[in-house]
Amino acid sequence: MNELAKMLEFIVEIERLKDVHRKSKPVGLDRYENSAEHSWHVCLAALILKDYANEWVDIDRVIKMLLIHDLGEIDAGDTIVYQSEAPELKAKEAAGVERLLSLLPDDRRAGFMALWYEFEAGKTVDSKYAKAIDRVPPLLQNLRGGGHTWKKNGITKEMVLSLNSRIKHGSQQLWDLLESKLEEAAASGIL
Amino acid sequence: MNELAKMLEFIVEIERLKDVHRKSKPVGLDRYENSAEHSWHVCLAALILKDYANEWVDIDRVIKMLLIHDLGEIDAGDTIVYQSEAPELKAKEAAGVERLLSLLPDDRRAGFMALWYEFEAGKTVDSKYAKAIDRVPPLLQNLRGGGHTWKKNGITKEMVLSLNSRIKHGSQQLWDLLESKLEEAAASGIL
Repeated sequence: MNELAKMLEFIVEIERLKDVHRKSKPVGLDRYENSAEHSWHVCLAALILKDYANEWVDIDRVIKMLLIHDLGEIDAGDTIVYQSEAPELKAKEAAGVERLLSLLPDDRRAGFMALWYEFEAGKTVDSKYAKAIDRVPPLLQNLRGGGHTWKKNGITKEMVLSLNSRIKHGSQQLWDLLESKLEEAAASGIL
Repeated sequence: MNELAKMLEFIVEIERLKDVHRKSKPVGLDRYENSAEHSWHVCLAALILKDYANEWVDIDRVIKMLLIHDLGEIDAGDTIVYQSEAPELKAKEAAGVERLLSLLPDDRRAGFMALWYEFEAGKTVDSKYAKAIDRVPPLLQNLRGGGHTWKKNGITKEMVLSLNSRIKHGSQQLWDLLESKLEEAAASGIL
């Protein structure tokens, strides 16, 4: 199989991300979101909000990071963020990304893999911002959707505030606004 | 409402693209694809295949174009490509994009709108490539999925070859490979 044919195989293979179900529902829809549509959503959200990053970000790198950030879920599945940071799970996701990328030429594979690890580590300016944006849709979905994920999974206000406060490392302004909305949600009883 | 709050409204509003249903099914899934997950798929496909473009493309512009290319469907709906180029439909899509972008600051709105029109016109190197990539997943989905869209909608081999041959304006190599796969599909009776 030549290189182009292998790339088409990759394009078919990653399509399985459309069948990985997340833990929250898009606003207005009575079904769980999948990780492919979520990936589109965070790419566009990152583009829109880029001027709110704490420091200048290379938005083109951020978008590429977000395009691939969930590929590991094709083999590992989606896990609720409040429980998803176990090392075994991360190793399974990394192996899954390696498997998918093996369909691509070596130089391309290495670049994507590095970008995936950079996102996971969340130490660089770009990855801190990307990770902040990744948290925005599930918060909005719960704020607008009666706190459905929180209620179903027994997630407390303290857990939500603690885990999501990392948004401030990517965008303090964004976190300030979301934190105030979360406090309002708690006051109204949905969190 | 301040600028950031309006941007969060935009992020909630575009989520409706997850409820716009297309005419083909992802490989291996027994449901129709939605335009949000499709948008993610074509962005990543464009990134993977960029070296196969006929001319050098600014892949970061191409990805931004593909992130927003289907936003008009939130108001106008998805129409099968074999019937979708009526001027009234395009006007409805343009109005829909304008409506959504009205939630963004003026300078940002103008830039996105120009990018959307550039994609629609398909005259520039970047937009020719973006439009070529936009055709790839539905062809692969039909080639791997028994030609379900073609059969259901009475689409003939001549229609498929005629409409999709525009892929060559973005990537001749990609079209050569896909054309040979379509010929095989026709020989085996699925097209």
